[in-house]
Amino acid sequence: MEQRKKVAIIVAGGSGTRMGSAVPKQFLQLAGKPVLWHTVNAFVQAYIDMEIVLVLPEAHFSYVADWIGDFKQVMLVKGGETRFNSVLNGLNTVQEPAVIFVHDGVRPMVSTALIHRCYEGAIAQGSAIPVIDMKDSIRELVPGGNRAVDREQFKIIQTPQTFLSEWILPAFEQPFDPLFTDEASVVERQGRQVQLVPGDEANIKITRPLDLTIAEALLGARD
Amino acid sequence: MEQRKKVAIIVAGGSGTRMGSAVPKQFLQLAGKPVLWHTVNAFVQAYIDMEIVLVLPEAHFSYVADWIGDFKQVMLVKGGETRFNSVLNGLNTVQEPAVIFVHDGVRPMVSTALIHRCYEGAIAQGSAIPVIDMKDSIRELVPGGNRAVDREQFKIIQTPQTFLSEWILPAFEQPFDPLFTDEASVVERQGRQVQLVPGDEANIKITRPLDLTIAEALLGARD
Repeated sequence: MEQRKKVAIIVAGGSGTRMGSAVPKQFLQLAGKPVLWHTVNAFVQAYIDMEIVLVLPEAHFSYVADWIGDFKQVMLVKGGETRFNSVLNGLNTVQEPAVIFVHDGVRPMVSTALIHRCYEGAIAQGSAIPVIDMKDSIRELVPGGNRAVDREQFKIIQTPQTFLSEWILPAFEQPFDPLFTDEASVVERQGRQVQLVPGDEANIKITRPLDLTIAEALLGARD
Repeated sequence: MEQRKKVAIIVAGGSGTRMGSAVPKQFLQLAGKPVLWHTVNAFVQAYIDMEIVLVLPEAHFSYVADWIGDFKQVMLVKGGETRFNSVLNGLNTVQEPAVIFVHDGVRPMVSTALIHRCYEGAIAQGSAIPVIDMKDSIRELVPGGNRAVDREQFKIIQTPQTFLSEWILPAFEQPFDPLFTDEASVVERQGRQVQLVPGDEANIKITRPLDLTIAEALLGARD
């Protein structure tokens, strides 16, 4: 298999992130370390030559100051107003050719196996979007009501959304469109078909206090 | 508002339920009581005149023997080969007119507020199907690939699926069809449009050991 440079763009909030009284979720403690520390560490552990681009609101740089030195090859980049702009700011630092992982900072449970699967998928097919099955029944809202749909036809999207640099860099030269809900949708706009790879149930997003409890339980089960 | 008799049909596995070495999920301990105890208790607490029809594999009757006496007005009914048949066995015990709740035995966190919302929805509109927003991005599998879809157009279905007896009883006289994925789909086959009501994020289904941990955390947050 071809070997390429690996760059993980870890997105942890843009410039517009609200600073309430509470510590942002990505800086809360999980098993004694900030959530974002675990996320960075997962990528650092996956490949010895992994480069990390950590995209943060400038106002949050101080939150990482005391632990960012734990990792070599981490670059801090200021977030933009939208997710699209934050990812673009990260992409602007990348030297081609590379495999580029775009990952949510609040998904600290991403496994080495999943990162490897995404890398290998991108090398083989240009892109790798991790997905898991939908466990719940769903209904679609339609004019005048709603209808049952077959959940087998749908997949839940995770990150890291992973691409060859020659796929994702030109795609982000397009002007922003509110229909760009994730990186895959930006790449698709250029007429490319993205490839799905199996994700991981444990690769949860930390968005509520309860999610931290779940993550602790998952870490416990992993050890 | 019209007042009606209330019957909760709680479905906890059919005759085909596999009996492995492990205790079935609905009988595992949650905060010192079996999961299914919590589920029954939630309905008993919601309305003083609630009747419970508990549909179980006959082989599991012994699992409830030591606590079923905690509750008045609980009838035990044998499950059928499919969910449809289990619900039908429960429905066959109901005297009309009633509001009928069909609920998963493994959703012990159902709240009084949600049960009331479903009752009131069914009285007002004939049916009430609790749903929650989809928090994850999703993709639809289509011939030759996949595409992004707007998650705002989809809702995740919960239980209790709730109906007036004159809606659900005739619907279950239809022959079984594998496309009947839930009670709403059975009722819809008769040309009725079901109504959605807001569900509850905490109304989770216990299907993995981790879900018990989550449920304990949710119970802790509730107290």
